[in-house]
Amino acid sequence: MIESIVKPKDGLPLTRHPDLVLISDTPKGRGVFAAKDIPAHTILETCPVLVLDPQENKLHIEKTSLYHYTYNWPTTTATGKPQTTQAVILGLGSMFNHSTADQNVGWERDVINGLVTYKSLREIREGEELCISYGSRLTFVDADAAAQTVDEGDGSLVLGSIEVDDI
Amino acid sequence: MIESIVKPKDGLPLTRHPDLVLISDTPKGRGVFAAKDIPAHTILETCPVLVLDPQENKLHIEKTSLYHYTYNWPTTTATGKPQTTQAVILGLGSMFNHSTADQNVGWERDVINGLVTYKSLREIREGEELCISYGSRLTFVDADAAAQTVDEGDGSLVLGSIEVDDI
Repeated sequence: MIESIVKPKDGLPLTRHPDLVLISDTPKGRGVFAAKDIPAHTILETCPVLVLDPQENKLHIEKTSLYHYTYNWPTTTATGKPQTTQAVILGLGSMFNHSTADQNVGWERDVINGLVTYKSLREIREGEELCISYGSRLTFVDADAAAQTVDEGDGSLVLGSIEVDDI
Repeated sequence: MIESIVKPKDGLPLTRHPDLVLISDTPKGRGVFAAKDIPAHTILETCPVLVLDPQENKLHIEKTSLYHYTYNWPTTTATGKPQTTQAVILGLGSMFNHSTADQNVGWERDVINGLVTYKSLREIREGEELCISYGSRLTFVDADAAAQTVDEGDGSLVLGSIEVDDI
């Protein structure tokens, strides 16, 4: 029986903050918003990822609109050489819009376990949209009118710091 | 300001049950398990979906392993004719494994809002894996040894009923 071979207490927690809502009709399209105030440094969601085969990614996924939703993901070749592919984020991570001027969400890859965890970078007030920086993956015209010069990092969260997007 | 143009209290709730964990090393690969008992008819997760362009889907996505994670999704052509494409389920819906003999999770599409909601079909005990029926999308050898004849429905949950997979 399954009960005898797995230990759910040793499983990886799949947190999602309970005070998040999806709103469809915004200037950025669908987006995730805070329904209540959320403190700084709060886990917003842990998302499993689907790591794409590098060949399939190059041949197919890069040619579709899905590509714009994927994240860079480190992997290795059959001979152990490092290479980069893409991963699909299976959760709200794929729904967070971009903000250059006022990102309030940072993220961190867990490559071993195939997870991305998102945290609030500062207090997020009720009614605010949750936004990450897409960094160098920005493939559209920035909807933030007062765009600032932005570090083209990859958006990884530096744990214990509210400085992100600078690795 | 964003606060003035959206109403988070009118947003779509993004429920995820708090007692779910991910376990990587199971006979079916990664899977979602109950860390505590979960009552019947409980919402397990509401997942936004990414509806794929039908042309891109046919030309590219169908040729990748990602295809096996997608769900059939109704859409219309430019002239309003019904057609079927695929959607990527952005959440744990993409992580639920298949069970022919003992599925305990049903699901329902919300086509208007681009969501899928998953509910427990019966009480799920601590330690059990959460499994749906892939129905006619079964593209692999069934890991359930005692497989029964199964209705090749599309797995949609009939709300208010524990009879599923029969539409």
